[in-house]
Order: sequence, then C-alpha cells, then structure tokens
Amino acid sequence: MPAAGRRSADRRASIPPSEAPLSELLSNFVAGRWQAGNGAGTPLFDPVLGTELARVDAGGLDLRAAFDFAREQGGAALRALSYRERAAMLAAVVKVLQANRDAYYEIATANSGTVKNDSASDIDGGIYTLSTYAKLGEGLGDRRHLLDSEAARLGKDPLFQSQHVLVPTRGLALFINAFNFPGWGLWEKAAPALLSGVPVVVKPATATAWLTQRMVKDVVDAGVLPAGALSIVCGSSAGLLDQLQPFDVVSFTGSADTAALIRSHPAVAQRSVRVNIEADSLNSALLLPGEAAGGEAFELLVKEVAREMTQKSGQKCTAIRRVFVPQAVYDAAAAAIGARLAKTTVGNPRNDTVRMGALVGRAQLNSVREGLATLRAHTDLLHDGAAHALIDADPAVACCVGPTLLGTRAPAAAQQVHDVEVFGPVATLMPYGDLAEGLALVRRGQGSLAASLYGSDAIALAGAALELADSHGRVHVISPDVGAAHTGHGNVMPQSLHGGPGRAGGGEELGGLRALNFYHRRAAVQASTAVLSTLAPAPQA
Amino acid sequence: MPAAGRRSADRRASIPPSEAPLSELLSNFVAGRWQAGNGAGTPLFDPVLGTELARVDAGGLDLRAAFDFAREQGGAALRALSYRERAAMLAAVVKVLQANRDAYYEIATANSGTVKNDSASDIDGGIYTLSTYAKLGEGLGDRRHLLDSEAARLGKDPLFQSQHVLVPTRGLALFINAFNFPGWGLWEKAAPALLSGVPVVVKPATATAWLTQRMVKDVVDAGVLPAGALSIVCGSSAGLLDQLQPFDVVSFTGSADTAALIRSHPAVAQRSVRVNIEADSLNSALLLPGEAAGGEAFELLVKEVAREMTQKSGQKCTAIRRVFVPQAVYDAAAAAIGARLAKTTVGNPRNDTVRMGALVGRAQLNSVREGLATLRAHTDLLHDGAAHALIDADPAVACCVGPTLLGTRAPAAAQQVHDVEVFGPVATLMPYGDLAEGLALVRRGQGSLAASLYGSDAIALAGAALELADSHGRVHVISPDVGAAHTGHGNVMPQSLHGGPGRAGGGEELGGLRALNFYHRRAAVQASTAVLSTLAPAPQA
Repeated sequence: MPAAGRRSADRRASIPPSEAPLSELLSNFVAGRWQAGNGAGTPLFDPVLGTELARVDAGGLDLRAAFDFAREQGGAALRALSYRERAAMLAAVVKVLQANRDAYYEIATANSGTVKNDSASDIDGGIYTLSTYAKLGEGLGDRRHLLDSEAARLGKDPLFQSQHVLVPTRGLALFINAFNFPGWGLWEKAAPALLSGVPVVVKPATATAWLTQRMVKDVVDAGVLPAGALSIVCGSSAGLLDQLQPFDVVSFTGSADTAALIRSHPAVAQRSVRVNIEADSLNSALLLPGEAAGGEAFELLVKEVAREMTQKSGQKCTAIRRVFVPQAVYDAAAAAIGARLAKTTVGNPRNDTVRMGALVGRAQLNSVREGLATLRAHTDLLHDGAAHALIDADPAVACCVGPTLLGTRAPAAAQQVHDVEVFGPVATLMPYGDLAEGLALVRRGQGSLAASLYGSDAIALAGAALELADSHGRVHVISPDVGAAHTGHGNVMPQSLHGGPGRAGGGEELGGLRALNFYHRRAAVQASTAVLSTLAPAPQA
Repeated sequence: MPAAGRRSADRRASIPPSEAPLSELLSNFVAGRWQAGNGAGTPLFDPVLGTELARVDAGGLDLRAAFDFAREQGGAALRALSYRERAAMLAAVVKVLQANRDAYYEIATANSGTVKNDSASDIDGGIYTLSTYAKLGEGLGDRRHLLDSEAARLGKDPLFQSQHVLVPTRGLALFINAFNFPGWGLWEKAAPALLSGVPVVVKPATATAWLTQRMVKDVVDAGVLPAGALSIVCGSSAGLLDQLQPFDVVSFTGSADTAALIRSHPAVAQRSVRVNIEADSLNSALLLPGEAAGGEAFELLVKEVAREMTQKSGQKCTAIRRVFVPQAVYDAAAAAIGARLAKTTVGNPRNDTVRMGALVGRAQLNSVREGLATLRAHTDLLHDGAAHALIDADPAVACCVGPTLLGTRAPAAAQQVHDVEVFGPVATLMPYGDLAEGLALVRRGQGSLAASLYGSDAIALAGAALELADSHGRVHVISPDVGAAHTGHGNVMPQSLHGGPGRAGGGEELGGLRALNFYHRRAAVQASTAVLSTLAPAPQA
C-alpha cells in the first residue's frame, strides 16, 4: 500500500496543474461496498484521440479486510449453493451484461481503440464464455462436491475402497489481468471460479480498467451475486499478493517478468498458493509440405495469417507471430500475405471504413516500435506497415500502426525471431526444408499457446498435431473441409484448453469443465463401501 | 558445480586424517556410465552402531551432459515405446528388485536403523507401487498418446471439434528425495514417470542414499531400461536445478524451506518448469462425537495412533501428529494410548524383541529433541519416551528415542502444536467440544497430507470427510466394519492421491493413473472430424 501510494503520487506530479478538470475516479468494490482510492489516480486515455477518459486508484484500501470479506462472506455464500444454483447465477450475469452491451462497446471504442469486430471478441466473447459455463454447470446438478472417477479397490477385499472427490478450495481467487481483454479476461476466469464456489477479486490492467470496472458495477448493482462473491481493485497491484493465504489461488495473465515475480512471492513460494500463469508466446502457423501456392490450404493460411496479424492490432496472446511455409512457396506466401495486408485500412475505429484500430496506448506503441526494430535487424521487410496512411486519425496523437510482415530465409540462425514477442500487428515469414525441420522451428518458441497447421492430408495433419501437442496448449488444424467452419487460430473457445508450457507460463485455463480443477481441491477418501455410498450424488430430477 | 566441489572439500576437511580407512565411495550413474565424484565424499552412518557405511560424492560431474543424455537418449527411447511396452519394462524392474530383496533389507537395517516391518514399507512398498503401475500401464495398450475425455463440438456444426490429448513432456524428471523412504520414494515417483515416457534423474537424500543407489545399480546392471532412462546423482544437490529446461519437471519431497528455494529458483520462476512439492504436514486423527471410551471406534483410534507414532520411529510424512477426541474421553484416550506405547520396545533392530528401531541419524535425533522441547513448553507429558530403556543399543551412540505422547486441554491456544512438525515418535492429544470445533482444530494444520476419522455412523463419517477434503490430500475413514481391512492412516496406497495443500506443499502424486498427468502435457487439438478420427487408438488386440 505505501508503494501504491507512492506510484500514484509520482504520476499525479507529472500531470501539470494547468490541465483540464480531472476525469471520473473509478471506484473499487471491496468488502461489500464501493470505495474510492485516496490518491488522485492514474489516468486512462483514448488511444486514438489522446483524451483522458477516467482515473483509477487503489490507495488507502484495507486489503486485508477486503480479502477476509471475500473469503468469509463470499466463499461461504457460494459454497452453500449447488453447482446448478451457481450455474443459474452465471446465467443471471449473462443477462445483466447483455442488457448493457451498447455501453461496453462505447467504452471499448474509446479506451481500447478497437473496431467493432475486435470489441466483440472481448465483450461478446466474455458473454459467450459465461453462457457456456452456465450450461456446463447446469449439467452438474444439485450437489456441492464432485466425484473424480470411480472408487478403486485397495486390495482384494472390496469392503475398503478409495474414492477421489473434488471440493471447492476455501479461499479466494485473485485475478491479475492483461490490458488486451478487459471483458473476456475477467469472465473466462470468473465463470469457472464462481461455478466452483470460489469468490473472485479482479485487478484489471490499468490502461483498460474502465470496461472491467463497468461490467463489475453492472453485475453488483443488479444484485445477482452474493455479497463478497465479486470484488474489483483498480490501480496498482501493490500489496495484493501479500494478502494471499494457503487456500487462495492466483491467476495471472501478462509478462514473463511479472510472472517470475509472482512465482517467487512468499505467498506462492512459502504458502503453496496455487498459481496459474499465462505469459509470453510466439505462436506459429505452418503450411504442411506439398501444398501448392494458390492451393486451398495455402489460401487458408494466407487468410488466417493476415486476419491474426490485424485482429485487435495483433494484441492477442494467441496471435500468429511466426509463419512457416515450404521453401518452394515462400515467395508466393510473402506476396499473398502482403497483398492482403495492403488492403487493411488503419485508423480511427469510429470510421466505418477502418478495419484495424489502435494499439492500446503510447507505452504499447513504443514497445511495438522497439520490438519491430529488433526483429528488422535480423529480417527482410516483406510488407511495411509504415506505408499505411491513417484514416481519421492524427499520426502525432493516435497510437495506430500499420501491419508489418517480416521474413528471413535463414530461420534457424534468426534467434530473435523465436524469442521476441512483438505485441502488435507484426509477424515473420520463414521457409523450411522437410517437415521435421519445420516442426523443430515451431518448437524454437520454447512453449506456446497455439499453433495452427494447414494442409489437406488428414493423417499428415494429425501426425503433425501430435508432434506439437507437448509444446502447445492448443493445436488448431485447418483443412479445406473446415475452411468455413473452423473457429480461428487465435480465438479462444471455452471448450478448449487455453494456456501453454514453457515460455507461455505453463498454465491451463478453460477446456470446458477442466477449468474447475484449478478452483477445486482433490482428495482421496478411503473408507468402507457403506461410507462411500453416501458420497454419491442424489439422483437427478 | 563449483559450489558442490566446495561443500565436498569442506566436509573432507572436517574428517580427521587419523580416522579409519575410508568406506566405499558410491558411484553416480549419469550419461550412461558410472562416474565417481572427485571429492572424498560425505559419509553415511549406521544410526544404531555409529559406524561409517559408505560415502557419496557428486563433485566434478558434468551435469549438463548428464541431463542432455537423459533428455535426448533416454527420452527418445522411452517415447518410442508404447504404454504397454513401458508397463512391461516396469514389470521387469519389479523382477530385478524382488531378486535382490535380501540385500535391500540388510542395507535398510544398517543405514536406516529400521526393524523388518518398517523396512518392508519402504522396500516392498516400492515394489508393490511399481507392480501397480505395471498393471495400470498394461491397460493403456499399444499407443503413445492418451485421449483426454471425448471430443467436444465447437459450435452447432459437428464438422469441427476439439479433442484434448495427453502426450509425454519432452524433458526429464528430476527427483529430490527425502531420507525416510529411499526405496519407495524413488519408485513411487519413477513408476509413473517411466510409464509416461519421461526419463528420471534421482538425487536421494544423502543420509540414506545407499539403498537408492543399490536399487538403481541392480536395475541398470540388469539392462531392463533403455540407456538414459534412469540416472542417479548421490551427494549434494548443488547445480542440479540450474540444469532444468522448460519441458523438465521436478518433484521434491522434504522441508518447506527447501521447497520455497526450489519454487524461487529461476528454472521454476522463469522457465515454468513444472514442480511438485510434498513438504511439512501436521496430520490428524479424530474420533467422532458420541464414541464411548473403550468402544470399537475408540479402540481403533488408540491402536492406529500408537502404530503411527512408532512405525519407522514416526519418520513418515503421513504419520499422525495431532489426535483429537471428544472432551469426555480425553483422559481415557491418554491412558489407553500411553498403555500401548509403554509396551513398545525400542533399540537395535537386529534384536527380534525390538519393535521400534532408530531415527535416521544424529542430526535427526537433535531435531526431534529440539521439537519435543518446543512442544513440551505448551503441553503436558502424557507418556514419556525417555522412560524407555534401549535394547541392545548404547544410548550414547544409538539414535534411538522412545515414543512420547503430549497433551493439552487448551488446543486452540497451543499454536505451536499445530505448526511444529516433530519428525519422530511424538504426537499430541487434544480434546474438542462439538464436531465443528474438532474439524476447525484439524484445519489449524493449514493443509495436511492425511487425516483419519474414527466412528461408527457412516453418514456422520462421510460428512466429516467431505468437510476435511479441501485441506487434505487424503481422508482415511476407519469404522468398525473395516477395522481389519483398512490399509492404515499413514500407509500410502498407489491407488490414492498422495500430497496435500498449503503447508503440505500443494502437490499431487500417485492416485492411480492420475499420477501420469504430471509427466504429460495436455493440449486441445481443434480439427475436422476426419483429422480427429485418426487420433483414436487402434483397436486393442
């Protein structure tokens, strides 16, 4: 808390007193009531117009009381409900959010600088994920614990057996979220947590905290959740981890550097607080050998790469950063992707002709420019984003950049391309010799969230997918038969695992009911068959 | 490596040159060959006779080459086998160990100071666990990947679906093990790792490394494992963690302090190396309300507490440390447990009349004495271990202590009793008022490996087991109908989860096939039904 106060004070000092009147200070919701921070706050900006939109501040909050309230009031109330009742609660949240969609789109346009389609992946994506868990939870029925598989005999005598059960952890779930999905990023984590019976405290990234805060406010005001089930702290994350106790869990999405700090924090290192990390990822797309330039698989790759590079201005953890094609089609792929990118209109998302909006802010713009400079030192420029004139946006103010395709014919030597994640509309095209070489290059990412494979031979595609399965949380396979039906390389579906090993942080989110595991504790109950028979769920109505 | 060398040198310097000729220096097996450390080594002792038995040293080993060899040679060879073939490999290991059982019992008597029954839990327990995984693996059949549940639709169109798969991680498994189970501790971890297709490097605790080293030597000499599948480093663990890469895993059993160091190590904090920790635990036994002194449930508790306190001289992670009984039967329980303990004969395990042997060594003896002194400051002495005369053992030399039962009538105030794990034949008896208070006292352990419940009402027992499930890895329920059939509070069965949240480290081992999850990576393969159909296993012969 002192640290948070200091940071706020520093920022306040940097705002000249001659500036316009202060924007609204967004309130925090903790310990069952709205509480304003005691600092002047950190401002949130419109990344296209440069105007200040709101401020956030968490100074002076009693975090210990906040966490105790969530654990004790929220946890007890949620655990008293059955899975079916909690699922109904999620369905009620869905209704609240649907009723307020227009306001969310307005906030996204202003604060994230995204075009409508990109705002949808955050807003409607979050609502869809909540709906999915409402449906899955309904199927779990009127019980308060889950059985994990069948009972197992512990010897020849069947009288004494072992039954594994899953019960909600008696702590809270702290979410420290990233700026790129203020809506979906909250609900993809909160849906399984709340369905599990675990209260949530969310700390959104400051740059885009407005949308998260508004969604929480609408849900709180609607009274569809028990007191203490959902809290929000806007502003600095200082002091949050210090409050964690052994049965709490923390889920973090962000940089590998911050992830390392979280893992080394005493709460995690000494108190065994369970942690889920989603960090950096250099996701790949690979066209299988033998696919001709201009063929169906080739065209599917070209379309998907261009889409992934430009959707949300490339600010997706799952976006394609590295593109691998057989040597023979390297030039054709460069030309085809470049041609698609050239058609991408960039600028003010309020203009209907604009396809790609802004980066989230000036810090991100600088970071993308730096990363691009690093990669350009080791690559050729195949399509130059700087050639895109901005539409309805002042280049001196707007945090907009055109999409850039880089390329190198020596991918094995270009280590930076496999290590540096440029979180913007930038990807690198690379040729490979045989498939083994191509897959080895994909693996140079040292663990990624997603890879996509493009080809027309089902057996070859399945074989390549299995080869990449240990180093990726998800392998997305696009063949011509699903050219129209597939859900997109970077689109995170609640039915599938989201996370990845190694550099990607080693976490696991979503994956349908698998997501509930993180919020439950598994225990073996060894007992007589008479005792174990009382653990079975009551018959469903 | 420099650090390891220094430590060895320090130790060497502390051995006076006038001492007896050096004992055998046990060799390390890494990079496919036996390699002696380049230091004089750390001696292993007989804890009853005080004689030096052997020495271990890992100085000068090329750990990078050792780990690379395990990953590249061992990993590739194991992954080339199907689950059924790896299961057959485990069955072959079982045969090798069975053929050498007598030697293992001799080593255990000499180096661990354990009576035959206690040695059996380590040696035959390890063999039984291996056998169990050989059988489970046979059932997985002739395939090299596992399907995780059914495919899930990703929309209304069934053409494109998500199938989760499990594939072995392409790294190695490093085991840093505890002194109390040099045999079982290796195999309970190695069985699921090898069955998963993941090579193993084991670093046994120095005090009892001899048995682990001999077992590995017998298995290596028998040639039943591929080169690189099993390596052993005896001596210091310095430098081992530095060698870990993103797809490796590390499984540690030992103190919470060392666990915190492992979690904060760059390999874990920065490279997302997956880690499993089994640390401290203040396990409980609780007699349910309404059970009369002298009744069946009461007697089952008394018997189990006395057995748990004395088995392996209380040097089990799962041993009962805290005993909770209804207030009305506190005095009766103190008398009954004390009477059983009084009959426990303590001393040289080579004498057939001895029921309880030694602690593992002098450091452990000092630690138990210190812990006992800490607890005694807050408790009454109900049965004094110091009253036990040692049989066939010199009290000035032998690391033997009698079992001590402590007690306090104010358990809520006695914080130390819930915090300090005395790793020896020591437990504390406490009364409780109503069941809610009893369960709350159990939970004061802040997460434990095992709790046992004693009672005769199946519904009450099941209810209490569910209440403790979130804070324990295992709840062992003893009712009169299973008085003869139950497997023991502290006995770790391979069918059941071994681990516990919070203070216990948050890890999960065993639990049947669940143990394979730690050594596999889960990925969602999103693809057309044509591609997914080729992932299904071939029909079993």
